[in-house]
Formats: sequence, structure tokens, C-alpha cells
Amino acid sequence: MPRFKLTLAYDGTAFVGWQRQAAGASIQGLLEEALAQLEKAPVAVEGAGRTDAGVHALGQVASITLSRDIDAATVRRALNGHLPPAIRVIDVTDAVDQFHARFSSSSKVYRYRLWNAEVVSPFERPFVWHLPAPRLDEAAMDSAARLLVGSHDFASFQGTGAPTQTTVRTLFSSRVIRHQLAPAAAWSTATGEAGALITYEVCGSGFLRHMVRNIVGTLIDVGRGRRTPESMVDVLADRSRTSAGDTAPASGLFLVRVSYEGQDL
Amino acid sequence: MPRFKLTLAYDGTAFVGWQRQAAGASIQGLLEEALAQLEKAPVAVEGAGRTDAGVHALGQVASITLSRDIDAATVRRALNGHLPPAIRVIDVTDAVDQFHARFSSSSKVYRYRLWNAEVVSPFERPFVWHLPAPRLDEAAMDSAARLLVGSHDFASFQGTGAPTQTTVRTLFSSRVIRHQLAPAAAWSTATGEAGALITYEVCGSGFLRHMVRNIVGTLIDVGRGRRTPESMVDVLADRSRTSAGDTAPASGLFLVRVSYEGQDL
Repeated sequence: MPRFKLTLAYDGTAFVGWQRQAAGASIQGLLEEALAQLEKAPVAVEGAGRTDAGVHALGQVASITLSRDIDAATVRRALNGHLPPAIRVIDVTDAVDQFHARFSSSSKVYRYRLWNAEVVSPFERPFVWHLPAPRLDEAAMDSAARLLVGSHDFASFQGTGAPTQTTVRTLFSSRVIRHQLAPAAAWSTATGEAGALITYEVCGSGFLRHMVRNIVGTLIDVGRGRRTPESMVDVLADRSRTSAGDTAPASGLFLVRVSYEGQDL
Repeated sequence: MPRFKLTLAYDGTAFVGWQRQAAGASIQGLLEEALAQLEKAPVAVEGAGRTDAGVHALGQVASITLSRDIDAATVRRALNGHLPPAIRVIDVTDAVDQFHARFSSSSKVYRYRLWNAEVVSPFERPFVWHLPAPRLDEAAMDSAARLLVGSHDFASFQGTGAPTQTTVRTLFSSRVIRHQLAPAAAWSTATGEAGALITYEVCGSGFLRHMVRNIVGTLIDVGRGRRTPESMVDVLADRSRTSAGDTAPASGLFLVRVSYEGQDL
């Protein structure tokens, strides 16, 4: 029975998130429906990351097993024929039997996009958190972000309703950058304001529920001068959700890529 | 009475076009409604180009006269407060009395975006014409496009239902480019396929109805090998709509900018 690794991109705006829900369209649910059409039988889809409602993906990864002999390119074509255009299977490759999108992954990269200017282009609006004023102190935010690198108990940044065995996670990198050039969206010459875009990009072994969005909400407090960069150490030590900032909105968040090492592919 | 030049960007997907229609939301109509709220009286808006239903703008220009003394930054803020997020006033500047967005313009630039790969990213999809196969011959398309530079009778490329005094127009540049790098949309690392994006960019003194989209439809015939580049000369000479290709869809078209020379600003 052939096993496959799927790489997916989606505009999460209209979906209830990755995971199948009682009501509403989920990425997983739509993918399972498309696979059921191909297989004429139910197919379980394992996703690398459970993106929340409204969160986007450039490189979500899923694993599936099919019953009949079929090549990867045909799977891609068939799935894209069934899925709505807001979800695209950008790549399908053969995988070994023990490959699992979630358990085999070694790291994930998330990116959060902030728009720090009065006017946000209609082409950027669905893909940012718009914070018109004040001008955020990106250097302070970057200092704060870097203090999260390493293995820490991230309980202060964990959303409610998602109990886990441990709240310790390891971050390999955690950076804030203000982009001095206008975003080079390929259709753009005029819509970007230089310096408007700030990104937070984080690479880690795994993430708790709402962890990236809660980190971003806390970094915004730093950027506004309401917290010092050094206070991030205390927030971690408190292990209490009330010590961290608000949850940043879903629209600015992208699951950028999922990495795998060694034999599982 | 102060006169202003407005620069606008819009995602045209959900609108009936620039011009006010009997039914449906138009950019001009929504702008006039927003201005009426500011002025407490009707305000006429003159647009530089009448973009069709579904066509986008990065730098549409409009001119208005207001009755009360008000500064440009306040006009921008007030209008953006009233307009839907898919339409943004990106700039407002003072203009001289004789400035007219349409009649004062010296040239306009349009860009048409083609996606020539099997899979189109969900983030590009609303802003391209998706032509998965065959691989288009962009060099032949560029040769054909360049033959249109100069003053010509573009009657073959004029849409029906828009009589004009003359169908002679002047193109200053007309180019097709295949972008070898993946589109550098600011949120992207993974969604672009190298070489998938082809753009047609044209600068001219003025354009007939559907002219850019009809040129693109004809260039696609060249890219598919159904016409020679040289045949563009015959299409122009025929002065007959049936000699040119089909009308390319609106989604790929952007009004990029409108230029003004000399004293009118």
C-alpha cells in the first residue's frame, strides 16, 4: 500500500482550521473528502501542524496511505481537481511506511506578518495584522524574541483547552525584522509602504496551541514600550497565561515549512 | 474650493468595475458615497481609467473638488474610514483647479499576469490568468508585443459597445517577460514555481475598451504557436475585432499607474 507525503498551501481565511470540526469546512476534512473520491473509500490524513481557523500555510505537510498503486503526480492532479482553489497540493512525493507527517517532523517554521503603517494595501490586508500606530520598536521586539531561543517551559504562551503532557518546547531561532523595502509582491509597484512590514519568524521542534500568536501579542507589548525585552524571561518563569500578552489575530500567521531528517523519508 | 488628486489601490474581484452602474458596487460609486458622507452633499469623482469588472488597480487616479477647507491627510483618513478594505486611498495630494484625472494624464501603465504552471498558489489565483499548459513561448510573445509600439489604429483590439471618435492610440512600450524567479510575494517562500509567472506590461497614451485584454488574448495565440509574431502587423491592418484573439479574463489585469506631466499638478 503506497504511502505519500503531501505538501499543501492554503489561504486559511475561509476555513475553520486544519482539523476536522463538527461544523464548517476544514482543510483536513476537504482533503479527506477529495481522497475519498479518489479511493472510493475513507482515507485518514495526518497533518504536521494543526493550524487554527484563519491561519494560512505555505508548506503544511500531510501523510496518507492509499490502497491502490498510483503515482505521486496523479495523486497531486486528482486532489487539486477536487479541492477548492484556496487549497492547493503543491507537491506529492513517495514516502516510506513509517513516515508520519507529525511524529516524523524535526522542526517547523512559522511566520507572523504585521503591517505597521496607516494604510494597508487591499492585497496585503487578508495576510497581516494591521497595527497602524504607534511605530513599533522592532529592535526591542527582536531582543525580546531572541530570549525565547532554547528549551523552555512555554506554559505562559499556551492557549487554553489543549492539555499536553509537557509544555517544554525547543526554539532554534526566533527573530523580528522590519523590512525596509516595500513588500515585493509580484503584482506590486505601488502598494507597499517602505518599512510597513514587520515579520516574526520562529523555528522550533514543536509548538503549543496558540503559542506563536501569544508570543506575537507579547512582542507587540514590547514594541509599544509597555514591556521591556528582558521581561520575556519573567514571563517564561511565571508559567502563567496571564503573564503573557494577548493572542494576535490568525490572519497574520503562516505555517511556512515542516522539516524532516534522516530515514523517515 | 480645494481640488485633490487621489491615488487608489483596489482588489477588483468583488466589484462591477470603476464606473457607477445601475446595479452592483463600483469603485467610483463607493468613493462618491464616502465623499458624500464627508461633504454632506454629492461629490463627482473623475477617474483616470475605467477599469472593467474584476480588474485590479495599484495606482488608479481620481480628481475631486470639495467645498470646504480640508487638508489632504484628513481626506485620505476620512475616505479610508468609509470605504471597504478592498479599496484603499493610498495617497491624496493638492491639485490645481485645471487638474483632471483623465484629461490631464499623459500615459498609463497596465500589467497583465499569466500563470503558466500546473498548480497556481492560492495566494496568486485571484490575480492571474491560469494557463497550465502548454508552456508558452514568451520570446515569440515578446516579439509580437513589441510590434505594437508606436501610433496605430487599434480597432482590431477594441471591445464592442464603446464607440470612440478615433481608434488610433500610441503605445510607448509593450513587453512580455517570463519571471525566472518565483514571485517574491512577501509572505512567500514556497508558493511560487520558478518561471510560472509571465507578465505583459504596456505603457500608452490611452487605451480602448478591453484593448489590453484583447492584446493579451492575441499574444497567447502567439505563445501557443497558433499565430506568428509578425501576424500582429496584419491584425492591426485588418481593423476588425474578429482578426484578433479572445478577450483575456479580468482577474489578471492591473492598472499600475497613471502619469501626469507639466503644469496640471
